[in-house]
Amino acid sequence: MLIFTNAVNEALQQFMSSKTFSNVAVVADANTARLAVPQLDALRDAALITIGTGDKCKNLETLVHVWQGLERCGATRQSLVVNVGGGVVTDLGGMAAATFKRGVAFANVPTTLLSAVDASVGGKTGINFNGLKNEVGLFREADCVIISSRFLETLPLAELKSGYAEMVKHGMLKSHDEFARLIAADFTCLDREQLLSMIETSVRVKQEIVSQDPHEHGLRRALNLGHTAGHAIESHAMTAGNPIPHGYAVAWGLVVEMVLSHMTLNFPSSDLYALAHFVRKNYGVPDITCQDYTSLLQLMRHDKKSERGEINCTLLSSCGEIRTGQTVTGEAMQEALDIFRDLMGM
Amino acid sequence: MLIFTNAVNEALQQFMSSKTFSNVAVVADANTARLAVPQLDALRDAALITIGTGDKCKNLETLVHVWQGLERCGATRQSLVVNVGGGVVTDLGGMAAATFKRGVAFANVPTTLLSAVDASVGGKTGINFNGLKNEVGLFREADCVIISSRFLETLPLAELKSGYAEMVKHGMLKSHDEFARLIAADFTCLDREQLLSMIETSVRVKQEIVSQDPHEHGLRRALNLGHTAGHAIESHAMTAGNPIPHGYAVAWGLVVEMVLSHMTLNFPSSDLYALAHFVRKNYGVPDITCQDYTSLLQLMRHDKKSERGEINCTLLSSCGEIRTGQTVTGEAMQEALDIFRDLMGM
Repeated sequence: MLIFTNAVNEALQQFMSSKTFSNVAVVADANTARLAVPQLDALRDAALITIGTGDKCKNLETLVHVWQGLERCGATRQSLVVNVGGGVVTDLGGMAAATFKRGVAFANVPTTLLSAVDASVGGKTGINFNGLKNEVGLFREADCVIISSRFLETLPLAELKSGYAEMVKHGMLKSHDEFARLIAADFTCLDREQLLSMIETSVRVKQEIVSQDPHEHGLRRALNLGHTAGHAIESHAMTAGNPIPHGYAVAWGLVVEMVLSHMTLNFPSSDLYALAHFVRKNYGVPDITCQDYTSLLQLMRHDKKSERGEINCTLLSSCGEIRTGQTVTGEAMQEALDIFRDLMGM
Repeated sequence: MLIFTNAVNEALQQFMSSKTFSNVAVVADANTARLAVPQLDALRDAALITIGTGDKCKNLETLVHVWQGLERCGATRQSLVVNVGGGVVTDLGGMAAATFKRGVAFANVPTTLLSAVDASVGGKTGINFNGLKNEVGLFREADCVIISSRFLETLPLAELKSGYAEMVKHGMLKSHDEFARLIAADFTCLDREQLLSMIETSVRVKQEIVSQDPHEHGLRRALNLGHTAGHAIESHAMTAGNPIPHGYAVAWGLVVEMVLSHMTLNFPSSDLYALAHFVRKNYGVPDITCQDYTSLLQLMRHDKKSERGEINCTLLSSCGEIRTGQTVTGEAMQEALDIFRDLMGM
């Protein structure tokens, strides 16, 4: 069940009374436990399980902490887990709920734009393991996702931008019009209801793709747009000790992959230029020189979605015309990175 | 895919060549790695991940060991995990496979009677956690289960008996005839093909129930027959430092619950006496006095399947006539335990 509303408390109350849950546990991080959970009266009597903030806490130790919290509060198979937070909370809390006693019901209340448009929907749960992102986990759709824009007003601008990059990705997967609308919007000045409406349009794109291929055997790889190059840029920055927000990496990755799309599938140059301009204006440029290419290519070849060590991308012949599973040679990727740096004025 | 054959290697070979797996990893315990895996030529080139033997190893530490083993052998989403062993191996190996990179394919090759007729089929994976059995895990059906009797000939008699108790349970769920056939058979003297044929009949009962209710919302609780009392007897013995095989506890639990079935649903006394006689002859009697009732009732109230602290059982009005979700009062259970001890000549 996917609910778009800023009346989060009422929606949660309604979901909670629609079934007879034996009790309710809330998973939140140190920030959302303080700022978001107290706004939700429906959770007043729920047991609170607090985890640390940030991707560094998305690990087995924290998962064990949540399992133990569920034990402690007497959770049964008829309990409900409500995850209130960003992607770390919904991914990890979702995995904890999906595995506790072989699965109890869970609801997601995303509090960041990135989790509202991406992480909280689509059933991917998981944790990092052995230094690899989301290395263990499972597919299980939340029983209820309540998506709002009410927690986003206090979000740092960088986090808003990070989420918006995924929205641009969804727009490109949908249509030229949707893409054009998104890069024309002054998304930092939207009011609460406008933003919620745009989030809904965006999530519907993802939802339609996921419903056709929930376990990522084919079409769902479309959602990987921008992420082969993006993940490599993100990991490279992390290794260099300069971590960057996920969405920034996706924004740059989108430009790299549209260069490739233009090179191999005639993706329109006008859209490529418009995207590059939008990304440069809002996200700046990554710290990459041609000396980093070898390391970037290595990372792309070890992507979870790659097969047999080949670089694998989702590309577009135009906005809305999706080509998943495109194999890209190292030479083509290097050329694309050159053109990317050129386009971004680096 | 469920295959009944003693040509295990050929069946495995066929399954492995039916899809293009990037590589194959085998999960086995110290015994099956030495005794069963070398018999399977299809696994000659597979990476072997060995775990310790026994329920004490069915824990998070071992799960991490298997995940790391999968990393080490370069497993991808296109890999296959083959679990060769008893219930610990298939439950834990299944959970590892179902969660590694959000799920890779896995096959089960059960090597004990208990795992052949029960654990390896039905999609329950999991590990013990915080001192509780199967406390975390998930439902995921194996992609292929190859059931044979060829590994059972070297099985200790107690383990054969343990598995046979679950077969008797299946027989009782199916029909009076099936129940009568099972308790009349001299199951310790069957040849390989006779035993395989009886295993197939037994597994088909479970499979039919599971296919109607894979996630145990209703009908699947039928498979819990004998287990409310049985688990309590098993846990009680464990706590007292005298662990007993799971199937022995199930055999005694079946008698206790048929006493209850007779008391409340008029289960035929002739079948009750026949069952009690069979169980006493083959499994002896448990070490229980009326001083243990309080502790046993406590354990039954905390069963994973109980709700609101009530004792919940599956009972029969006759063989094949199943009543799930029967609430049993403490008094009725005490009376049943008294009659059980009487019937068993304790």
